Amino acid sequence: MEQTWLYISVAASLLSIGAAIYLFFWVKRQDPGTERAQEVASWIREGAQTYLKRLYLTLAFVAVILGFIIAVVFSFDLAEVASGTVSIAPGNGIKMALAFVGGAVCSAIAGYMGMAVAVEANVRTATAANESLNKAFRLSFYAGSVMGLAMVGLAVIGMSGIYLLTGNPDIILGFSFGASALALLAKAGGGIYTKTADIAADLVGKVEVGIPEDDPRNPAVVADNVGDNVGDVAGMGADIFDSYVASTVAVMLLGASAASLSSKYVVLPLILCTLGIFASLLGIQFVRVGKNGKPGPALNFGTIITTVFFSVLVLALVLLADINIGILWATLTGLITGVIIGFTSDYFTSEERKPVLETARVSGSGAAMNIITGFSYGLVSIVPSVIGIAVATLLSYFLADASGLPGIYGIGISAVGMLSISGMIVSADAYGPIVDNARGIAEMSGMDAKVIETTDTLDAAGNTAKAITKGFSISAAALTVLALFAAYAEVVTAAGVEVNMSLRDPIVVAGVFLGAMTPPLFSALTMLSVTHNAFDMIEEIRRQFREDPGILAGTSKPDYATCVGLAAQGALSSLILPAFLAVGLPLLIGFVLGPNALGGFLGGSIFTGVIFALLMANSGGLWDNAKKYIETGQFGGPGSDAHKASVVGDTVGDPFKDTAGPSLNTLITVMSLVSSLFAPIIAAFHIF
Amino acid sequence: MEQTWLYISVAASLLSIGAAIYLFFWVKRQDPGTERAQEVASWIREGAQTYLKRLYLTLAFVAVILGFIIAVVFSFDLAEVASGTVSIAPGNGIKMALAFVGGAVCSAIAGYMGMAVAVEANVRTATAANESLNKAFRLSFYAGSVMGLAMVGLAVIGMSGIYLLTGNPDIILGFSFGASALALLAKAGGGIYTKTADIAADLVGKVEVGIPEDDPRNPAVVADNVGDNVGDVAGMGADIFDSYVASTVAVMLLGASAASLSSKYVVLPLILCTLGIFASLLGIQFVRVGKNGKPGPALNFGTIITTVFFSVLVLALVLLADINIGILWATLTGLITGVIIGFTSDYFTSEERKPVLETARVSGSGAAMNIITGFSYGLVSIVPSVIGIAVATLLSYFLADASGLPGIYGIGISAVGMLSISGMIVSADAYGPIVDNARGIAEMSGMDAKVIETTDTLDAAGNTAKAITKGFSISAAALTVLALFAAYAEVVTAAGVEVNMSLRDPIVVAGVFLGAMTPPLFSALTMLSVTHNAFDMIEEIRRQFREDPGILAGTSKPDYATCVGLAAQGALSSLILPAFLAVGLPLLIGFVLGPNALGGFLGGSIFTGVIFALLMANSGGLWDNAKKYIETGQFGGPGSDAHKASVVGDTVGDPFKDTAGPSLNTLITVMSLVSSLFAPIIAAFHIF
Repeated sequence: MEQTWLYISVAASLLSIGAAIYLFFWVKRQDPGTERAQEVASWIREGAQTYLKRLYLTLAFVAVILGFIIAVVFSFDLAEVASGTVSIAPGNGIKMALAFVGGAVCSAIAGYMGMAVAVEANVRTATAANESLNKAFRLSFYAGSVMGLAMVGLAVIGMSGIYLLTGNPDIILGFSFGASALALLAKAGGGIYTKTADIAADLVGKVEVGIPEDDPRNPAVVADNVGDNVGDVAGMGADIFDSYVASTVAVMLLGASAASLSSKYVVLPLILCTLGIFASLLGIQFVRVGKNGKPGPALNFGTIITTVFFSVLVLALVLLADINIGILWATLTGLITGVIIGFTSDYFTSEERKPVLETARVSGSGAAMNIITGFSYGLVSIVPSVIGIAVATLLSYFLADASGLPGIYGIGISAVGMLSISGMIVSADAYGPIVDNARGIAEMSGMDAKVIETTDTLDAAGNTAKAITKGFSISAAALTVLALFAAYAEVVTAAGVEVNMSLRDPIVVAGVFLGAMTPPLFSALTMLSVTHNAFDMIEEIRRQFREDPGILAGTSKPDYATCVGLAAQGALSSLILPAFLAVGLPLLIGFVLGPNALGGFLGGSIFTGVIFALLMANSGGLWDNAKKYIETGQFGGPGSDAHKASVVGDTVGDPFKDTAGPSLNTLITVMSLVSSLFAPIIAAFHIF
Repeated sequence: MEQTWLYISVAASLLSIGAAIYLFFWVKRQDPGTERAQEVASWIREGAQTYLKRLYLTLAFVAVILGFIIAVVFSFDLAEVASGTVSIAPGNGIKMALAFVGGAVCSAIAGYMGMAVAVEANVRTATAANESLNKAFRLSFYAGSVMGLAMVGLAVIGMSGIYLLTGNPDIILGFSFGASALALLAKAGGGIYTKTADIAADLVGKVEVGIPEDDPRNPAVVADNVGDNVGDVAGMGADIFDSYVASTVAVMLLGASAASLSSKYVVLPLILCTLGIFASLLGIQFVRVGKNGKPGPALNFGTIITTVFFSVLVLALVLLADINIGILWATLTGLITGVIIGFTSDYFTSEERKPVLETARVSGSGAAMNIITGFSYGLVSIVPSVIGIAVATLLSYFLADASGLPGIYGIGISAVGMLSISGMIVSADAYGPIVDNARGIAEMSGMDAKVIETTDTLDAAGNTAKAITKGFSISAAALTVLALFAAYAEVVTAAGVEVNMSLRDPIVVAGVFLGAMTPPLFSALTMLSVTHNAFDMIEEIRRQFREDPGILAGTSKPDYATCVGLAAQGALSSLILPAFLAVGLPLLIGFVLGPNALGGFLGGSIFTGVIFALLMANSGGLWDNAKKYIETGQFGGPGSDAHKASVVGDTVGDPFKDTAGPSLNTLITVMSLVSSLFAPIIAAFHIF
């Protein structure tokens, strides 16, 4: 039966990829708009392609080196090496290395497709907005679906294919590591790129010389719009791709290591992904707005109906395929927790709730009050999500346990269940930056006020949809790393070493301390890169204004390309240290302090990783909306002291929510994966 | 022998208290200065006394209620209650309740003495500064010593007395809980008070109406100076009192529970405290400056010579009293780590190092860049201290273990060793706010420019001395809570329940998540209180300026008392929720999720507690010094855009470093103590 299921998975992924390709060409067939609009769009497209080309070239270089190391290391039979004899089976090493490269390539293709469709879709959305909101909405949502569908399709075909060919979930670990390593660099690099450009463009443009946002006289405006594509679209796509694959492989490993489970439970996570693809393909059909309909509720309705479809499919699976009912409970726990966390974290960033209102109110007393208040509410916002994650952990564990499944397998299934509908989730999420960019192009190419208004409405809907998305991604990431954490322990145990992760053991405690400091350090490195690079770009923008007064007068065209190049160069060179942290530090801890310390290290990184990710995402969103609220005319409105203070908060929040925060999930995933991958070697060789 | 040792401890504490009283009256005998200066000082004194009176009244109320609960609960024999039969021994309950109240009272007296001498010493220091730096330094340092010596004396006499009378370290746990509960409220309340007044005074005074700091026309200026006394002096005194007692009692408990240790190892921590008192009394004699000497090095020299004396005394103890050599290694590990952590964290706040310089440099591009950069370096500053704590944990554990002592006992000893020299550490630390206040009084009473200059020099020395102090207090607190954490496990085990704190157990993981969110939440609550209360006080200051234009003209006296009252009222009513968190949440977790989850909870709170305490202390100090650096004329100097941006950073840093950060150590101590105290009951009664 497993064989049949795997073929169905492959078929479903091909269907999903096919749909993505179809929609891609559908988008390309739409009206690309006026010549001026196309020119502006072409600057953005070229800038984005230049950056991605450089990024992928760098990544290819890294992938080849890491792939080579993996090929060599895994050619040895590690158990034998540890016991003194050495035998070599190059086949395993090559399989592992190919899987690693395959993961990286699939993740890159998904990100590239998302980016490619986004740069085509934004100008077309702006053009369509001139006609009707309805048409513009459909175009931008279908463009978003290209990445959503491509991503799940590539992930599932990769994993199913490997399992069909090798029958060994360990090899899929290599695939997952490839996907996550690429995601981390794409996400962190994109986050640094986008905020470097954004902050520099705003500080010189809006604050110093007083030109509006997205004004084509600003030399950094193209880099800023490129940033939206590479950071928000391509980066986000790679990010969810990575959680999606990691949770699946973690559960496959847990299924394979549990003696009490039959072999179908190894394949089960892939089956859930497949059902999720069907549910997403169906759910996407339901995302429509009428003539004067609201796009926000349409997106949310799509997510909810997909969730319902998926739950029904899982129920059917349980009934028809003789699957333990605990699978359904765990899946439902995951889905419901995701929705609840989404809505509670929405409270902290909503313009109608106390946190944003209070932050806006105190802004009248200066930027410091705005920062302290926003940061404090960001800290409070950790609470409901952490409670939600704790409850989901316990519920999925004990519900699975009560149904006769290993509890930890239940935790993993709740993560997989949540992520199974990623096709829909990513579609709704990728929609946001596309309409945001459409607005930028409309502004830069001097389109009607009506177009700006329509794209604003579409943009607001994107922000609402993000609430659920964010809840899903945070809770799924937390549950995924908990499952990976358990998988790590299983791998070490399988290597014949007793794992002790008791907090009463000082070496575990030391590991937890070191792990707990890693996410804050990683955040700091990426944010310092942003300020450092933004500082260079500010100098460049000032230089251009100084040397050619025609730019501000609107008579000469600024040198966009230099700013694009500066942002790209800065982002890529900033990745070295964070990359070392993610891959090198776990190995260092493991080889020096041993597998128990490494277990503690992973645990510590999960705890603070989740907390800092929540803090940064929510306080960043809160500052953003406090500014927007004041811009509606409250507390003095635009230009008031309160507004100036809120702009400071918003600028601080930018690298919080778009650079440091979103990379943390991927950081802890990469660290968990590299640990699991190298666990057998660490179990055999470590100093203490 | 133990009996003899305890008598020596009592004698040493009486000596220490006697020295404190002698110095107190010595300070009082010094020249109180001009009538104008005395008048200004009297406002501050009255304000401080009013606040402390209200605070202690509130605390007395809380102490009576908690004491009553403790008396009732501990009158039962819990092992019997759990097994179904009930017998009552009211004597135990009353002893425990008395110890609890005694701890609170001793801590209050130490804080009160520190505050009482500070408000006398500040005006006298200002007056002495008119004469010579040398004289002013001696006066303020001896005033600081009053609190240092009173504190260690009261702590040791309390603990030795209880052990002499009852022979039961569990009762000392009650004493420690009393001290910590009071410390938490004093620290958090004082921190809220001082920053409410500081921020409000600055925002209206300096920013809105443009009068200098400490200008007597500002209605909040007295509240601001009162805040320095209640927050920095009384609060800090209570804080170190609490770590000092908690580490001692934790090690006594660990000594009592280790079957392999003879009874003298139960008393040993008290002996180390006693040796520390002797070392401090000696060391204080060496803190002198010549006519043109530098006060900073003088303070550091005092600390270092005390450390050396203490190490020699411990060596002598080990050799003469047949004590395991591991005690010496653990003590030295603690002391050396404290010094190293102090100097590395100094790097992040020093005006000559990259973090401060870089933060100052980017300030030219606005407040947001200042905030992001300072916050990021604050995150990086976590790293060396966390590595130091991890190394100290492992070293003291394995050195003790290698010497034949229980490893965890070694960790505790390293904390006790570090804190033993608290008499000297607190003296050097309390000196800072006294000279800071002296400067304020000099300004407000219109003293010579020379006085201001001298007090500025003294003030800078205080900041340098803080580096070592801070290193000691952070690392000592971390090691103390680790020892308390181990003691908790011992208490639960003694209650006949197997403790499992493995990170592979989902209930432990859920506990860690919940514990990890508590320090951020606590920080947020105290900081939101600051902005909330500051907002009210800003309104009050504006009202006074509006209704009586004579205030700004300098013809009428502002209404200082209303501002003092507002700050006091606000601070006290803000304590309710944080207090519940500290005491109620661990009990809630314990009784609902059981002792394993509570163990995880304590662990989680320690990890993020240490990390947030470091982040907040260091980024706050960094922003403060970046502003000061710009004020020396760099990057545009005072009045420039860079300066304005740095003022925002400094204001954000204020509640970071003086409100939220310093309370976190105490928070995790209180949570650990309440858990250990109630552990036998929780072990017997919990839902899951």
